[in-house]
Amino acid sequence: MTDALRVLPLGGLGEIGKNMTVIEYGGRIVVVDTGLRFPTTDMLGIDLVLPDFAYLRERAEDIEAIVITHGHEDHLGALPWVLRAVSEERQPPVYAGRLTIAMARSKLDEHRLRDASLADLPPGEELQAGPFSIEMVHMTHSIPDSCAVAVTTDLGTVLVTGDYKFDQTPVDGPPADVSRLAELGRSGILLLCGDSTNADRPGFSPSEREVGPQLEEVFTHADGRIIVTSFASNIHRVQQVIDAAAALSRKVSLVGRSMRKNVNIGRSLGHIEIPEGLLVPPHEVEDWPDHKLVVISTGSQGEPLSALRRMAYNDHPAIQLRDGDTVVFSATPIPGNEGAVGETVDRLFQIGCRVITTREAPIHASGHGYQEELKLMLNLVRPRYVMPVHGDHKRMHLHAQLADAVGIDPDRVFLAQNGLPVELDSGGARFGELEHSGMIFVDGVDIGDPADAALRDRRTLSADGIFIVVATVSVQTGESVVPPEVIFRGVPFIELADELLAEIREEVERSLSKSARDGVREIDLLQEELHDHLAAFVYDRLRRRPMVLPVVVEV
Amino acid sequence: MTDALRVLPLGGLGEIGKNMTVIEYGGRIVVVDTGLRFPTTDMLGIDLVLPDFAYLRERAEDIEAIVITHGHEDHLGALPWVLRAVSEERQPPVYAGRLTIAMARSKLDEHRLRDASLADLPPGEELQAGPFSIEMVHMTHSIPDSCAVAVTTDLGTVLVTGDYKFDQTPVDGPPADVSRLAELGRSGILLLCGDSTNADRPGFSPSEREVGPQLEEVFTHADGRIIVTSFASNIHRVQQVIDAAAALSRKVSLVGRSMRKNVNIGRSLGHIEIPEGLLVPPHEVEDWPDHKLVVISTGSQGEPLSALRRMAYNDHPAIQLRDGDTVVFSATPIPGNEGAVGETVDRLFQIGCRVITTREAPIHASGHGYQEELKLMLNLVRPRYVMPVHGDHKRMHLHAQLADAVGIDPDRVFLAQNGLPVELDSGGARFGELEHSGMIFVDGVDIGDPADAALRDRRTLSADGIFIVVATVSVQTGESVVPPEVIFRGVPFIELADELLAEIREEVERSLSKSARDGVREIDLLQEELHDHLAAFVYDRLRRRPMVLPVVVEV
Repeated sequence: MTDALRVLPLGGLGEIGKNMTVIEYGGRIVVVDTGLRFPTTDMLGIDLVLPDFAYLRERAEDIEAIVITHGHEDHLGALPWVLRAVSEERQPPVYAGRLTIAMARSKLDEHRLRDASLADLPPGEELQAGPFSIEMVHMTHSIPDSCAVAVTTDLGTVLVTGDYKFDQTPVDGPPADVSRLAELGRSGILLLCGDSTNADRPGFSPSEREVGPQLEEVFTHADGRIIVTSFASNIHRVQQVIDAAAALSRKVSLVGRSMRKNVNIGRSLGHIEIPEGLLVPPHEVEDWPDHKLVVISTGSQGEPLSALRRMAYNDHPAIQLRDGDTVVFSATPIPGNEGAVGETVDRLFQIGCRVITTREAPIHASGHGYQEELKLMLNLVRPRYVMPVHGDHKRMHLHAQLADAVGIDPDRVFLAQNGLPVELDSGGARFGELEHSGMIFVDGVDIGDPADAALRDRRTLSADGIFIVVATVSVQTGESVVPPEVIFRGVPFIELADELLAEIREEVERSLSKSARDGVREIDLLQEELHDHLAAFVYDRLRRRPMVLPVVVEV
Repeated sequence: MTDALRVLPLGGLGEIGKNMTVIEYGGRIVVVDTGLRFPTTDMLGIDLVLPDFAYLRERAEDIEAIVITHGHEDHLGALPWVLRAVSEERQPPVYAGRLTIAMARSKLDEHRLRDASLADLPPGEELQAGPFSIEMVHMTHSIPDSCAVAVTTDLGTVLVTGDYKFDQTPVDGPPADVSRLAELGRSGILLLCGDSTNADRPGFSPSEREVGPQLEEVFTHADGRIIVTSFASNIHRVQQVIDAAAALSRKVSLVGRSMRKNVNIGRSLGHIEIPEGLLVPPHEVEDWPDHKLVVISTGSQGEPLSALRRMAYNDHPAIQLRDGDTVVFSATPIPGNEGAVGETVDRLFQIGCRVITTREAPIHASGHGYQEELKLMLNLVRPRYVMPVHGDHKRMHLHAQLADAVGIDPDRVFLAQNGLPVELDSGGARFGELEHSGMIFVDGVDIGDPADAALRDRRTLSADGIFIVVATVSVQTGESVVPPEVIFRGVPFIELADELLAEIREEVERSLSKSARDGVREIDLLQEELHDHLAAFVYDRLRRRPMVLPVVVEV
C-alpha cells in the first residue's frame, strides 16, 4: 500500500473512446467514467469494445464510487459490464447528473440490472466517499448535464474534465461554471486530466446557439420535405431543429428508436420543449404536404441499421425519399465513419435529394473545445500536473504542446497510456508500474479477450474460407473404409470444383495410406499429417490458404 | 445493328474507380480505359475489383482498339484480365502514351501476357481503326503522359477527357493542349465524357509546381531525418522531393517496391532526373547523419504492407523511425483510406515523430481539376452533349450543375450509369437499352461473380464462425455408431466449452434417433434435420448464429 494518490487510466488514452479513469488513495478507489468504443472493421463480428476491467474486478471491494461525467456511450456505455464484474460483493454506488442517471438507468434496465445503486449528484454538492470528496462541476458539451469531476483527498485535487467546451451562449442552461473552476484553481489543482479531442483545432469552437439560425436559413431555401439527421443524444440540436421547423410552420416527425427515446427522456427532464401539436408520427408523414414537414432522423454516422441509412437504401417502412427532398447532415463523421457517411450521401444524390452537409453551411458545432478553450481550461485551473486524456497519441501530444504554450513545464505533463498510472505525493509526481489494461470484446451476450484464437480464425475464414475433410478409418488397419467427405465453404470462384474435390479425396487416401504404412495410428497425429498434406495441395492448386480442417473418425 | 454512335460506360459511374468506356459505331468498338478498383472492407478476402467485361467478351471480334488514357490503376489496372478475356480469337491492339505503355508492359509481364500488342500513340497523331479515327490530346495530371482521347466517326467526335487538370506551370513537359481542345471544339464535339472527381471543389486546383517550394520550406525546418510519402506513380512529385533534398544537400533513399519501380521507369523515359551520387540504398540509410537524409517512401494511403506503414509499426527491415524524425505526407487520403492513414499518423506521433500533412502545409496538389477547370473544359470544347463520368453520384450531379452553369441545356446532359449507353445520331441523343455491367472480384488467381454464395458464407464465418458436426451412422439402423465429433472455429468466448460440446453431442444423438424412428435414412435429409435442430440449439445457447455444418457418414 502506498500513501500516494494514484491516477490510473484504463481507457481513452492513445485511442478515441472507452474512457475510464481510476483514482486511488489510501487503498480506496473512485472510478470516473465507464465508456465503450465501437469496433473497427477488422474486429470481425464484434459488437462492442469495453475497457479491460480486470483491475477493477480484483479491487472491487475498494470501490467507493463510480462517477459518470455525461451520458455519451464513450463515457457511460460499459457501465452494465463493469457493474456486473464488480458487484459480487456489493453494488458500488453510481453518481452522475440527472439526465445521465436517467440514461444509465435505461441502459441498465436493458441489461436486466435493476438493483444498481444510482444517485443524482448535482453540481456544487459535495459527496464524501471514503477518503475522497467528490464534486461535479457544470460544463457545456453536446449533451445536457455534462460535468467535470473534482476528486479531493488529503494530498490534493484531481480534476477530470470529461468532455467539454466553453460555450458562452448555450441553448439551454448556464455556461460552464468557470467561476467554480477558477476557485478550484485558486485552492490548487494537483492534476488535471483534460479532454484532448479537439487539440488539433485552432481557435474557439462555435457556440451551439449559432447552429439554430443556420438551420433556419437552410430550411428557408428548401421547397420540399426536409430531413435533418444528427446525434440522438444531442438534445439541444434537436431542440433547435424543432424551433426552426416551428418558426417556418413545418410539422416535425421523429424517426429512429434512439431519437424517440432520447427526446422522451430529455422532455421528461425539461431539457427539450416541443410546442403542442407539432409532432407527427412517422406513419403519418406521407399525409402532410412536402413543404410542411421536417423529419428528424438518426443515421448521421451512416450506421447500417439507422433510419436515414434505410431511407437512403429505400428500405424504411414509413418514409420513402424522393427527388426534391432536402437532407441536412447536422453532424460531422466521427473518424472511421467517413466511408459509411459518404456512401449514404451518395445514395441520396442518386435518389435526387439535395444534400446539405457542414461543407455547404455551418450547421454543426462540435461539443469539444478547440485549442484556445483547452488553454483557457489550463489557465483557469493552473494545475500542478497535467495528464492529457481522451485522445489518440496525436491529440495527446498536441494537448501537451498547448500546456507548454501556456507556460506549464513539460516535465509536469504526463503523456501516459492505458494502464500506466501517475503517482502523486508531497515529493512530486511520477509514472508508477504498468497495470494490466486492454480491450474486452463483446460478441452477442458473451465477452472475452481480443487475443482469443477464434478471432484469428475468423480472419482466416473471412479471407479464404474453409475446407473440411472427414475421413473414416478402420480402427484395425488405419486404412480409409468409406470414401472421404470433402466440403468447402467461403471458397469462391473454383472452376471444376468436382474435379478438385475428387483430387482432394485422392490426396486424403494417399496421405492416410502413407500414415498407415508409417504406423501412424494416433488420431491427432493422423489429422496433423492430413492437414499439412492437404494445406500444401490446396495452396498449390488455388494460391489461397483456406483453413483446412481434417476430421478422422475411427470405426 | 444500329447506325447510331453508342457510348456505353462499363465502369466509373456512380463509383470512384474501374473506369471503362466502350464507344461503338458501325458494329465496331473502341474501348477507352480498363481500370480497376480496390476492394472495400466488406468485400472479405477479395484482392481487386474489375469492371464486368462480359459485354466485351461477347463482342471480342469487334474490338478495333483499346486506348488507355494514363498509367493509374483505375484506368489501366484491369488490362491483363480484359486482354485474357477478349484475346481468344485475336489480340486487340492497345494504344497509349509511352510511359503508359511501359507501365502496361510491366503489368502484363507480371501476368505472363507477353504477346500483347502494345503501341505508342503520341498526341497529335491520327490513328485509323475501322470506322474510328483516334487521337490523343496531351493533358496534365498527377502522372506524366496523361491524355484525353478523341474518337471520331462519321457522326461526330466523342472526347473522353481521362483524368486532367489545367496546370499552367507543370513540373515537366508542356501544359494541357488547350489549343487542340479548342480546335476540336470548333470543329464540333458531339459528346464529352468528362472527369467528375473534383466537381465538388470550387475554384482552380493549385499547380504541381507550387508544391516544390513548400516541400523545401518544410525540409528547412527539419533538424533530423525527413521521410516523405507520396504516390509512387506521381513522378513529378518525386522529382520535386529530390530537387528539394538536393538543394539542402541531403541524400535521398527510395523505399518501397513500387517507388523504386516507378522511378526506374520514369528515369528511363526521361521524366525524372536524379543528380549523380544523390541516391543511397535503403540499407545504408543508417550510415548517414540524420540531417543529411530524405527518405521517399510508399504508404501515403496507410496501405497495410507499405514501407511507411511498416516503419510506423516498427517492422521495416532497413529503417527504424525515432523521436526527431519528420514524416511528410505529400498526398491526401483517397476516400475510404482516412482510417488507415489516421492510424499510421497516430503511430508516428506515438514514436515521437513530427508529422506534416496537408493540414499543416500546402504540400500536395490534386491531379484533378476543380470546378473552374471543369467549366473551362466545357467552354473549350462546347460539346453538343455531356456525360459526366469518373465519379460517384454526388460528383456526377455536381458536374451536371457545372454544365448548367456554363449554359449547356440540362436536356443535353446525360447522367448515365454503368451499363446504360447513350446513343447519338443525326436525330439527337438518348439513353439506349441497359446492358449487363457490374463487378468482377479477383481472389488470388481466380476471378468471379460477387454474388457467389461463398462470399456470403465468408460474411457468416467472419461474423459468427462455424460449428462442424460429424456423425457416423450405421447403414443398417441409421443409429449413431461412434460418438459424434463436434468442432468449432471462429466462435470465441465460450465459457464451459466442454459442457457445451457434450450437450451438442447429446443433441446430435437425439436428432439422429428421432430421424431413425421417423424412418429418415436419406443422407441429405438427415443432414438437413440435424442442421435445423443444432442451429436452433446453438442460437438458444449462444445468441449467435454461427454456420452449422453437419456431416453424416454411413458405415
